[in-house]
Amino acid sequence: MTDLMEAVTSLAKRRGFAFPSSEIYGGLRSSWDYGPLGVELRNNIRRAWWRSMVQLRDDVVGLEAAILMSPRVWEASGHVAGFSDPLVECLNCHQRFRQDQLPGPACPNCGQKEFTEPRQFNLMFKTHMGPVEEDAAAVYLRPETAQAMFVDFRTIQQASRMKVPFGIAQIGKAFRNEITPSNFVFRTREFELMEVEYFVEPGADEQWFEYWKEERLRWFLSLGVRPEKLRLRAHASDELAHYAKAAADIEYEFPFGWSELEGIANRTDFDLRRHQEASGEDLTYFDQEGDRRYLPFVVEPALGVDRAFLTFLLDAYRVGEAKSAKGEMEKRTVLALHRDLAPIKVAVLPLSRNEALVPEARRVHDVVKARWMSAYDDAGAIGRRYRRQDEVGTPFCVTVDFETLTDGQVTVRERDAMTQDRISIDRLAAYLQERLAA
Amino acid sequence: MTDLMEAVTSLAKRRGFAFPSSEIYGGLRSSWDYGPLGVELRNNIRRAWWRSMVQLRDDVVGLEAAILMSPRVWEASGHVAGFSDPLVECLNCHQRFRQDQLPGPACPNCGQKEFTEPRQFNLMFKTHMGPVEEDAAAVYLRPETAQAMFVDFRTIQQASRMKVPFGIAQIGKAFRNEITPSNFVFRTREFELMEVEYFVEPGADEQWFEYWKEERLRWFLSLGVRPEKLRLRAHASDELAHYAKAAADIEYEFPFGWSELEGIANRTDFDLRRHQEASGEDLTYFDQEGDRRYLPFVVEPALGVDRAFLTFLLDAYRVGEAKSAKGEMEKRTVLALHRDLAPIKVAVLPLSRNEALVPEARRVHDVVKARWMSAYDDAGAIGRRYRRQDEVGTPFCVTVDFETLTDGQVTVRERDAMTQDRISIDRLAAYLQERLAA
Repeated sequence: MTDLMEAVTSLAKRRGFAFPSSEIYGGLRSSWDYGPLGVELRNNIRRAWWRSMVQLRDDVVGLEAAILMSPRVWEASGHVAGFSDPLVECLNCHQRFRQDQLPGPACPNCGQKEFTEPRQFNLMFKTHMGPVEEDAAAVYLRPETAQAMFVDFRTIQQASRMKVPFGIAQIGKAFRNEITPSNFVFRTREFELMEVEYFVEPGADEQWFEYWKEERLRWFLSLGVRPEKLRLRAHASDELAHYAKAAADIEYEFPFGWSELEGIANRTDFDLRRHQEASGEDLTYFDQEGDRRYLPFVVEPALGVDRAFLTFLLDAYRVGEAKSAKGEMEKRTVLALHRDLAPIKVAVLPLSRNEALVPEARRVHDVVKARWMSAYDDAGAIGRRYRRQDEVGTPFCVTVDFETLTDGQVTVRERDAMTQDRISIDRLAAYLQERLAA
Repeated sequence: MTDLMEAVTSLAKRRGFAFPSSEIYGGLRSSWDYGPLGVELRNNIRRAWWRSMVQLRDDVVGLEAAILMSPRVWEASGHVAGFSDPLVECLNCHQRFRQDQLPGPACPNCGQKEFTEPRQFNLMFKTHMGPVEEDAAAVYLRPETAQAMFVDFRTIQQASRMKVPFGIAQIGKAFRNEITPSNFVFRTREFELMEVEYFVEPGADEQWFEYWKEERLRWFLSLGVRPEKLRLRAHASDELAHYAKAAADIEYEFPFGWSELEGIANRTDFDLRRHQEASGEDLTYFDQEGDRRYLPFVVEPALGVDRAFLTFLLDAYRVGEAKSAKGEMEKRTVLALHRDLAPIKVAVLPLSRNEALVPEARRVHDVVKARWMSAYDDAGAIGRRYRRQDEVGTPFCVTVDFETLTDGQVTVRERDAMTQDRISIDRLAAYLQERLAA
């Protein structure tokens, strides 16, 4: 199973999905940059999420809040006092670890078993805003996006004239100074969250908690993730965060074991209440039909873009066989990504770098690229170019050959079944649209 | 002219485009959150830029790099030593200012003219990564996205098999600890950049510098910005940044005067050379056709999402008149945003909250929302609902009335001309598609 992780990490680097940040300087531990194909995959993940969570719903609106918020937000939320992990240091090799993640517990570095007493290490990154460090305000890089939805709850509810139940959705960067980042982009210090805070009437929270668990599971299935690799796991009461009445993880079976892909939490009215008390502002909602005021309860589905990225890559990675031009069976690596997620939707390939084929293929590419993220490739044997597109998950390859010059038709090859259709260039856009539309 | 700024800021807050961050805690100076309509406008700006700069071009690929990079990047780039502004303090009221921005120079706060000697204040936000502050690495929040394109140049060029000339595009957050943030979202400490680093053969840089100035100006015009509000201004030699051989600004006539909207710079091989020297890695490019190695020169068009957001809002803001239902002329506020930028493309409005009209309007809305970001509104008089949509720039309003129930047709009203077409529901999607397509 570790082979799969290595294969995907290697493909990611070689084809420009993701690679270590600042690599020419030896990198910055567990910090990753996303290259040309990685950006497109991330854009597609964000779009699919936004479409499902905002565009198609009448009851969710968007927010894009600043990463740097007032430090009073993190005092009220409990993060300044309590957002910490137990840190221990090995007395022999002086490496530092999260006590609750020590296997054994022996030092994963040197194997010795003596550690310092644990101390609480706050995971928020701190910096200073304003012209002079000494007297400027200490501010934090947000460790979650959720607090902005609570702090802005009233402003957004009023500006959008939403009625409870409704949600606020946000996609944005968050930062946690993790003691032990690990597993490629699974756990990193800088990451991107996609969160909805869904505000409901007190008493309706348990029902909405059930709703969101099912709804989010359905989303992964709708994007082609294999059902046997997904499961829901309820948190035991001793696992619950300080703000949560109930929580569940959608887990994926990663090569390193079943782990959290997305978390769904019933945050109750904990956050709104804390902010109401700390700010002195009235954050209650007036329910006109029921003629009463209340602080809404909140159900939160929260997913990391990076973790979704890793899941979709791992889940789509397949090694099979295909017949070569010479009729021999050879290895074929395919990313069987859902069409909505594939970084490149269509590749246009002239059969060879011929002076008549290339301009024709360029014209076909102009038609394609106006509509979809696409590629043009005329370097090397056609079979090899198909493999290059298979490996990055391109659903359709359009080949321009010598017959095209006389009959105006191209060959469209589908990635998974490797079927080939002969299509008139006039009808190409409509043909692809039908097969690529969401 | 300041009235325009006030009108737009007020509209932005009232309708949920943008409002002060952490407002219930008194805000965080010059930090802004973008509400439901603001997020959609920003998404549309980013999409229009990405489509123009990446999707439609064969010579530009994307990157999404980490905000936290190795500190060695900023040593090599010159930012640690030199990215600073001259800071002075008023001896009377102790407010701090950028010396080069003092009008007079008298203190804008108290009017006195005596200041401390200027000292250099580095604009990078610093934080600490790793488990213990004392010995952890100091890292910086990136003050520009460009350095990642230089540091990752070789990896991306090889993974994407690009040939010079080619560009790397990135959209992402950057942070500068500005002494005097100002003018709504025009100058903020946290902002989002859209940058391309375009790598060219040395000697071809001046020609590409000219190309990018024209190309970028054309982009704003293509999105409907009024030509008389835009101009190109070349930097004088004493204005140039330390890395630049030439630079020009695309300026917009903001209510507070002509100011930089986008910057285009000829950065030469300054950055690649510095990183090659500091890292010891070979960052040269091998030109197969010319059979030679060289460090490419770089031309950079760099635009802030926030500044583009402000420009599009200001430029689209119009106050005119329209006839009310009673036949009287009344004030009409319109955001004449380009269709690609409008946050909501289509609003569906039942004529009244009638029990037969509402379900029919919901069915029409289902058709619309599957394709576009949309709104459904059944609250209040129809004229008032048109004004609400005009004010946020919705290009089309679809009204479902009692005739719809018998003839299956709806009224489609266009925002700018206020023309009304009667369209069959069957043909509605195609009708709107034709008018909304890019």
